[in-house]
Amino acid sequence: MKSRTIIKFLFICTIIAMASLQKSTAQESAKKVRIAKLEIYPEYLEAYKVALAEHAVAAVRSEPGVLALQAVYDKAHPTQVTVFEIYASENAYQAHLQAPHFLKYKNGTLKMVKTLELIETEPIAIEIKPGLTAITSDK
Amino acid sequence: MKSRTIIKFLFICTIIAMASLQKSTAQESAKKVRIAKLEIYPEYLEAYKVALAEHAVAAVRSEPGVLALQAVYDKAHPTQVTVFEIYASENAYQAHLQAPHFLKYKNGTLKMVKTLELIETEPIAIEIKPGLTAITSDK
Repeated sequence: MKSRTIIKFLFICTIIAMASLQKSTAQESAKKVRIAKLEIYPEYLEAYKVALAEHAVAAVRSEPGVLALQAVYDKAHPTQVTVFEIYASENAYQAHLQAPHFLKYKNGTLKMVKTLELIETEPIAIEIKPGLTAITSDK
Repeated sequence: MKSRTIIKFLFICTIIAMASLQKSTAQESAKKVRIAKLEIYPEYLEAYKVALAEHAVAAVRSEPGVLALQAVYDKAHPTQVTVFEIYASENAYQAHLQAPHFLKYKNGTLKMVKTLELIETEPIAIEIKPGLTAITSDK
């Protein structure tokens, strides 16, 4: 009887451990996909674009968890900037916030940014052709 | 004197031809990067997501000039869909509009789309980690 109780106890422990593990794996594997919409003060636009491009290159090339940063400006309203961001996980994003290149970008561009809106999203389909890794401004 | 005139004429022709070639190459190499913002009727949201995902997979995997289609919905407002689109050129985009999978998607979803806004953009920096080719919905 005693050994049956121990077996039952161990069985329940195993179920709980497996459930926790599964939850943790799911959280870690869920990509974080976000859209940042910014309005830049016109007088800082060129400086802002340089800082943003430098930051995107550094983050994607040096941080394993920063999968994509895709920054564009609206042709009709050039001070409106959109960044389409993909992180490997919430943890990867939190690590990114501590990276030296992010802090340099954030602090260096604070005065340039008029408004910032962050939109949390869920992917419907992200399809990228193999080999597409970088596009810089044509202008 | 006659040969000098011919040489001048050929020189001018060469300059014009080189300028045209350069312009044509620049137009062809300029990526088209666009953001489509859609509001979907709630009753069609699930069907729309299926159609959009199917279309994105077909377009990026079968069309050489469709470099990326990245579709997401806003977590806070799930009927608001954003597609971040990258085409190799304007010509590639025009070819895409004639593709059977695009026409199927477009005609099949017409009644599902409440509003559509197309925003033409210029890249500041597009940085994508090598190997990131597809993410499907986690939900």
